[in-house]
Amino acid sequence: MSLLIVGTVAFDKIETPFGKTDKILGGAGTYIGIASSYFTDQLNIVSVIGEDFPEKYRKILKDHKMNTEGIQEVKGGQTFFWEGKYHTDMNSRDTLATELNVLADFDPIVPESYQNCEFLMLGNLDPTVQSKVLTQLKTRPKLVVMDTMDFWMDIAWDALMETVSMVDVLTINDEEARQMSGEYSLVKAARKILSMGPKYLIIKKGEHGALLFDKKENCFFAPALPLEEVFDPTGAGDTFAGGFIGYLAKTKDLSFSNMKRAIIYGSALASLTVEKFGTDKIAYLSQEALNNRIEEFKALVQVDIKMID
Amino acid sequence: MSLLIVGTVAFDKIETPFGKTDKILGGAGTYIGIASSYFTDQLNIVSVIGEDFPEKYRKILKDHKMNTEGIQEVKGGQTFFWEGKYHTDMNSRDTLATELNVLADFDPIVPESYQNCEFLMLGNLDPTVQSKVLTQLKTRPKLVVMDTMDFWMDIAWDALMETVSMVDVLTINDEEARQMSGEYSLVKAARKILSMGPKYLIIKKGEHGALLFDKKENCFFAPALPLEEVFDPTGAGDTFAGGFIGYLAKTKDLSFSNMKRAIIYGSALASLTVEKFGTDKIAYLSQEALNNRIEEFKALVQVDIKMID
Repeated sequence: MSLLIVGTVAFDKIETPFGKTDKILGGAGTYIGIASSYFTDQLNIVSVIGEDFPEKYRKILKDHKMNTEGIQEVKGGQTFFWEGKYHTDMNSRDTLATELNVLADFDPIVPESYQNCEFLMLGNLDPTVQSKVLTQLKTRPKLVVMDTMDFWMDIAWDALMETVSMVDVLTINDEEARQMSGEYSLVKAARKILSMGPKYLIIKKGEHGALLFDKKENCFFAPALPLEEVFDPTGAGDTFAGGFIGYLAKTKDLSFSNMKRAIIYGSALASLTVEKFGTDKIAYLSQEALNNRIEEFKALVQVDIKMID
Repeated sequence: MSLLIVGTVAFDKIETPFGKTDKILGGAGTYIGIASSYFTDQLNIVSVIGEDFPEKYRKILKDHKMNTEGIQEVKGGQTFFWEGKYHTDMNSRDTLATELNVLADFDPIVPESYQNCEFLMLGNLDPTVQSKVLTQLKTRPKLVVMDTMDFWMDIAWDALMETVSMVDVLTINDEEARQMSGEYSLVKAARKILSMGPKYLIIKKGEHGALLFDKKENCFFAPALPLEEVFDPTGAGDTFAGGFIGYLAKTKDLSFSNMKRAIIYGSALASLTVEKFGTDKIAYLSQEALNNRIEEFKALVQVDIKMID
């Protein structure tokens, strides 16, 4: 089933306790697209790049079956660039540079060939850009998943609420869920956020896993895989989202129990992403490597709980 | 099967954002004993109290089937007392007072009637006191579980290592695992700690759940239940340990897969403890309330993971 992704295609420069990179391929759209390519080959992306975006990175997108017709290339423009440095615990980072460049005036255009997509992933972007993509679709997709971040809560609350009210699944991290709801308890936060529109809420807790809530107060928890080393957390949340929606697009089953599986697949892919810099690990992954990681998740979570008398 | 517990029986005075208590019943031995009483009625406790320990608290211990012959009452002595105040996020707390009192000179004596116990829980105490209990047993129990904390790493490292080398299961929290091993990665920390003696390691992550590791690099994760409110976290770790060893004592199965179930039971009991002050919630729990909580854990963790082609 066809999947449409809107998200940044960007350059990242990353420093972690393990080393640093030059400008490498990054962006939410990139990670989402690569992750979901392990599940579907009907993959369309809407994004924007500058003239400086090199052929070798275009090739990575195309190698992952992405239809790039919806990526606008701005003549004379520079691609969005982010530079960051992670602290020792990898849970916090300093942004050293953010150059919006072509992203500043991004006006997304959905090509005609992208119409009738059945799954839509709105990667973290200005909520106005996200809603512009959704409203250009003549037929509403079966499932719309939206990622966002605290930045948009701070500067674009009304637009964010508008877009949030239109989606089926919202993914945010735990601190953002608290900020958005004004509730410290994640159970209370989830209830409040679900009253803003979405049918499902995924709260991402990084190394502490992810929670899925629905409006019927069902709650599922998936852990992150404990790893020898987290090498570079960049893109983990986007990879998670790509694995999640990719698995749903492949299996075409929107039940709560299948969403639980989708979260395990998203978590498995995210656990691979963080083992190398940028997209190095996730870009060319064998089916065997992914299956092995899924088996590790099975061992990590599966328990046959028996009642006692 | 008979279970022997050594641990403090104490007074706690607690302040949380929800309110504060007078001196109430507390102590690791108390929480472990109450939690394990839901699984076994052959329950023996070694501890020490002062003459100030009131009849109503003795009754709570006896109501939970605890054989209290091994609780020494020091004439003219005062019971161990701890006073603490939790911060808004409930993850950190300030100790306002610690009065060791009769605990300062505690020399544990295992009564003859406690011999031949099959399960031994060494609650958090001076590691020398813990090992004195173990070495008084003429027959080594089938399973010895030990809890400890950073305090003993700081002031009694050698004694701690000696005791750790004698036990089957060690339970500590994530920060303590990092301190004990000098490794940030919990996978690496677990490997190093398991080389110090224990066959199994449980890393407690509070609201982020618990990890079980064995020497064959098996790893299982159990989440904490997301709650509307955490009212008072005091005793959660001890309740977890009591539920864990109590379940194992009841089921008499020391396989890794049964330890996974035991961790779920420990987590379920801990999730109940924190819903009221002190032992208020856990002290008189119906089988139905425990079963309902176990069902909530089932819903939270169970997922039927399918491989994709």
